[in-house]
Amino acid sequence: MDEIKGLLRTAADRYNRVQPHSDEVRALVMAAQRKLYGAAEFRSYGQYAGKPPVDYYVFSGNQSVSRPVRPDLYIVEPDRFRQEFESLIANLRRDPVVWGDAAMGVANRVIYTSVMSVACCYDVWQRGSRKTPGTVFEILMAALLQTMLADANFSKHIPLAAILAEAEGGAAVRELAEPAPPEDAEGPGSVATDLVIKNSISDVGGIVIPLKITTRERIVQPFAHQRILDSAFGKGAFKSLLVCISETQLDEKTQSVKQVCVPGTVKLFQKHLAPMYGLYYCDIPQRYAAGDMERVLPVKPIGRLFGDIKEMLEN
Amino acid sequence: MDEIKGLLRTAADRYNRVQPHSDEVRALVMAAQRKLYGAAEFRSYGQYAGKPPVDYYVFSGNQSVSRPVRPDLYIVEPDRFRQEFESLIANLRRDPVVWGDAAMGVANRVIYTSVMSVACCYDVWQRGSRKTPGTVFEILMAALLQTMLADANFSKHIPLAAILAEAEGGAAVRELAEPAPPEDAEGPGSVATDLVIKNSISDVGGIVIPLKITTRERIVQPFAHQRILDSAFGKGAFKSLLVCISETQLDEKTQSVKQVCVPGTVKLFQKHLAPMYGLYYCDIPQRYAAGDMERVLPVKPIGRLFGDIKEMLEN
Repeated sequence: MDEIKGLLRTAADRYNRVQPHSDEVRALVMAAQRKLYGAAEFRSYGQYAGKPPVDYYVFSGNQSVSRPVRPDLYIVEPDRFRQEFESLIANLRRDPVVWGDAAMGVANRVIYTSVMSVACCYDVWQRGSRKTPGTVFEILMAALLQTMLADANFSKHIPLAAILAEAEGGAAVRELAEPAPPEDAEGPGSVATDLVIKNSISDVGGIVIPLKITTRERIVQPFAHQRILDSAFGKGAFKSLLVCISETQLDEKTQSVKQVCVPGTVKLFQKHLAPMYGLYYCDIPQRYAAGDMERVLPVKPIGRLFGDIKEMLEN
Repeated sequence: MDEIKGLLRTAADRYNRVQPHSDEVRALVMAAQRKLYGAAEFRSYGQYAGKPPVDYYVFSGNQSVSRPVRPDLYIVEPDRFRQEFESLIANLRRDPVVWGDAAMGVANRVIYTSVMSVACCYDVWQRGSRKTPGTVFEILMAALLQTMLADANFSKHIPLAAILAEAEGGAAVRELAEPAPPEDAEGPGSVATDLVIKNSISDVGGIVIPLKITTRERIVQPFAHQRILDSAFGKGAFKSLLVCISETQLDEKTQSVKQVCVPGTVKLFQKHLAPMYGLYYCDIPQRYAAGDMERVLPVKPIGRLFGDIKEMLEN
């Protein structure tokens, strides 16, 4: 694990200093995926009791069991993972990007495998690092988006500075940008949770990309932030695209898996707090695929994100 | 600890079943306060480096150290705690309630001592029960408010049902009412975090009382809920009074204490999300007492809450 911890630290440090970090992220996820392949067992755990049921596996080793993993999305074999990763990078670099079903499938699998492989390494060999999966998700997505948009103007934080500049001297900006609780002070927990692609250096506005390993309580944050941006800069100046990987819960008694999702809450926030302009998942929870959700806020595979962002930036 | 755990379970069960639970809460906090007095050392830990500095103590025992506690608010001596508790109950029962400085001081000390005594018992003898202090805070405040307002119509949850009745069948209401993450499934974690005093049985509207042992991230929730209520029922139908006890952080290296507070964020939410109608603390963090905060959202001692609620209900 020392190699993986070191690679994560290097990638997060470079990301925090706004230096290119694609090679470092890639080295990290490759190492984690290879370690699980070599040193843990990938075995069936149980099902999510949906219609149809959804299979979940776990990695086991070191007398521990990882979080549930979807075997239809996770790429087990290291050589195939490397090939698909390279294929995703090539798709991101192509201009104009054409995202057919095959390319979208590659994006879903590569992003899911990347995030879950690091998360599961920590689950098995380094328990108790709660923020690591979220950090990896953010620095990976930043690297991929920077690969696609080499000339875009990225920012790690929602630029709320302007809202409060006169009243505050920026206190809220610092507070919102550093929500890491003290127990994570030793890890890369100070990485902020939102990416912003600015319209241009001079314009106000842009695309906000909150990244969540979804939890019930924290799902309010991107809606509240969008509402604040609407209030401060006018509706639609900033547009949020919420990008998620499902949270799941193991039920050890019944050897089954629950998909944590809150469609009612999302619909409530979408209607009464502020609208997201899109909701994307690597692994769409089954209850989000229902028709009533479709009418309020359609849930799309993460592979759609890249083409949608290109389109938004061109219009 | 078995006695205290049992008392907490009993009180929380009765509260969840909407049965009177004042005697049970009182037995719980008395037992916890007595146990700390008899079996733990209450000793100086360090200071919050404010102007002026603020002293913090900790309870130590069982090779553990509790969270920081303010010795100017915590009542150490069991007989005096019992007397002040009885004095608070008598003040709550008096009609019309007159809340002078002395009565407000009693309220602050009794509520602070009650919540911190149970929290510190868990810190010292039963680590890892993250939600317990919040639960105790809620069931205690519910008992005290019911003592003051014997005829009022209380509810544990913000009645968001009406908002979504047509679209949802109440899914969001259930989700919002049960935000407990799985690690707390064995505790009384299903207690909801908000009290509502309804205007009357027929009217829509009332006073919403979110109770928080404040943390940076969760502070968004009451503002977001108020915004949803404003959107769904019209501005001011529901009025939120946010009631808090400070979160603090021990810094073991420097033997000092940090007061977790986010005045910039609170001002931002107050202006751009939805306004709270009041913000109350047992132990007001020093940075909230500053003049710029005063202009946006004045922070009052918790003793003011009771009189303010009476006044709001009478107008």
